Amino acid sequence: MTSQIFSPDVQQPLDVVGIFVFALSGGLLAVRKNMDIFGICVLAEATALGGGVVRDVLIGATPPVAFTNMGYFLAPLLAGVVVFFLHPEVERINSSVQTLDALGLGLFCVTGTAKAHDYGLGSVASVALGMLTAAGGGVIRDVLANETVSLLRWDREIYAVPALVGSTMVAVLIVHQHLTTLTASAAAMTAFGLRMLALRYGWRAPRAWHRNGSRTSEE
Amino acid sequence: MTSQIFSPDVQQPLDVVGIFVFALSGGLLAVRKNMDIFGICVLAEATALGGGVVRDVLIGATPPVAFTNMGYFLAPLLAGVVVFFLHPEVERINSSVQTLDALGLGLFCVTGTAKAHDYGLGSVASVALGMLTAAGGGVIRDVLANETVSLLRWDREIYAVPALVGSTMVAVLIVHQHLTTLTASAAAMTAFGLRMLALRYGWRAPRAWHRNGSRTSEE
Amino acid sequence: MTSQIFSPDVQQPLDVVGIFVFALSGGLLAVRKNMDIFGICVLAEATALGGGVVRDVLIGATPPVAFTNMGYFLAPLLAGVVVFFLHPEVERINSSVQTLDALGLGLFCVTGTAKAHDYGLGSVASVALGMLTAAGGGVIRDVLANETVSLLRWDREIYAVPALVGSTMVAVLIVHQHLTTLTASAAAMTAFGLRMLALRYGWRAPRAWHRNGSRTSEE
Repeated sequence: MTSQIFSPDVQQPLDVVGIFVFALSGGLLAVRKNMDIFGICVLAEATALGGGVVRDVLIGATPPVAFTNMGYFLAPLLAGVVVFFLHPEVERINSSVQTLDALGLGLFCVTGTAKAHDYGLGSVASVALGMLTAAGGGVIRDVLANETVSLLRWDREIYAVPALVGSTMVAVLIVHQHLTTLTASAAAMTAFGLRMLALRYGWRAPRAWHRNGSRTSEE
Repeated sequence: MTSQIFSPDVQQPLDVVGIFVFALSGGLLAVRKNMDIFGICVLAEATALGGGVVRDVLIGATPPVAFTNMGYFLAPLLAGVVVFFLHPEVERINSSVQTLDALGLGLFCVTGTAKAHDYGLGSVASVALGMLTAAGGGVIRDVLANETVSLLRWDREIYAVPALVGSTMVAVLIVHQHLTTLTASAAAMTAFGLRMLALRYGWRAPRAWHRNGSRTSEE
Repeated sequence: MTSQIFSPDVQQPLDVVGIFVFALSGGLLAVRKNMDIFGICVLAEATALGGGVVRDVLIGATPPVAFTNMGYFLAPLLAGVVVFFLHPEVERINSSVQTLDALGLGLFCVTGTAKAHDYGLGSVASVALGMLTAAGGGVIRDVLANETVSLLRWDREIYAVPALVGSTMVAVLIVHQHLTTLTASAAAMTAFGLRMLALRYGWRAPRAWHRNGSRTSEE
């Protein structure tokens, strides 16, 4: 099992921290959308666990780990309660939240890619599922909240590209049988670092060429 | 199999009635959104079966029972045709529809929780899947219709909390090995009763505290 | 295996062409919604593969073929790149794209129905999954792009009905053990032809009766 990159004593707390921070972003959007405590918790759960649940369903690992690991399930509820009582404070430390979110992004693209490979998927598919693990929850969050999907907006800093780089590094490491705790951490930190740089310098991806010649709707 | 709470002779007609009523709510939204007969039937199917299909996919019970039980599949089509021809009449008896919908809510949170437990999920996960069975179809309905998800709106009477109570009762009954037709019915009736009281007295869940201090967007 | 209707040498290229054309429609919507290159590729992938992925998850065929067949996965990326550089040209040949899209519709409703039957589903469920294979990707595309689901709009030419006819023909052929390359091709061409006629003559499905008497929201 290559997905046991980190010892369980390390992996579980890391996962829970990543899940908790993803849940904060869901809870904060729920507050902005004026939802009640229940909506906050639902959106926190969906954001935090959605990517991993979809990955597990696609690779046939049912029931998804989110439903069998109590900590994974309860962390988003805790995040929801925190946001319910303390959302102005959480908003205020938003840059810290974004830093932790970038850590979650790095962690989950690495573990998602490794888990998909464990279940027999090829390198390209494993990379795709690693990205899905990292970014899928945010997509579900936005769809449920009836918002434009943040991942697909051109005016947001790149989010999927750092995940793509991290996932690809893992896939290459697996092929060359060099995936260890150290190299996996390097891949996660690379994705994390790219995301932080994207936030810092406002990196965006290009939109379609020759746009003036075509019908477009400004959002 | 604890999920065989009710004898098949009782369970199947109950399920079909619940599915039919859920489908009516999907069909009525489709009419309000000006969809054609096909859109009405698609939304009726998705609303009525969506929660159970997602539950079955998550617990690994594929193909979902909605695709193997003809009655489950055909009931929403019938509801779609009824709405197509008689939607003003169905709207007029909307309070009766809401009563039947509350019955469906009670029934499906109970059977969903029990089925998840049968497939080896723990108590907390079974409760979550019971709620998902009862409320998931409505979420899919609203996402497909591009509406704000009703379940997540603060200005709607609580829907998930009655399901939470019913599902939790079932999970506790299972742990104490007291789940029988009688006690399961009591759990379903509790969820039903809470939903009816919520509708009658306009029960709503609280929104985030200190809201004035934070950025919110009124919908 | 009835789903091996066509020899692999024929099926694979046909599938890839269908996937590529479906991906073009996703990519074009992404351009119209002003997304960047990454959003274009995500929407191209989701549109092209979404229907088949959902079908495979529902019938328990995980991991979905979209994640195990490299050509299926790479074709939408290629379509995304084509749209990125050449979208005005692709828009200009839109009627050709619609013709190819109709071919994809015919092909995928046939192969989707046959595959569902192979996995043990009954005739009605197989028809439903055939339609889902053909039309599901477009629904996912519209939900991700936060558009009104095209399939559910009354003011669009019928799309699901041709798929319904093609899928039903396949289900009947399977029951009577007459599914061959020839008859399957006839079913696909029937669906294709109906869709082309619908586009040519503006065929639409009826909306609910007596609409004046009810509350409706014009879109």
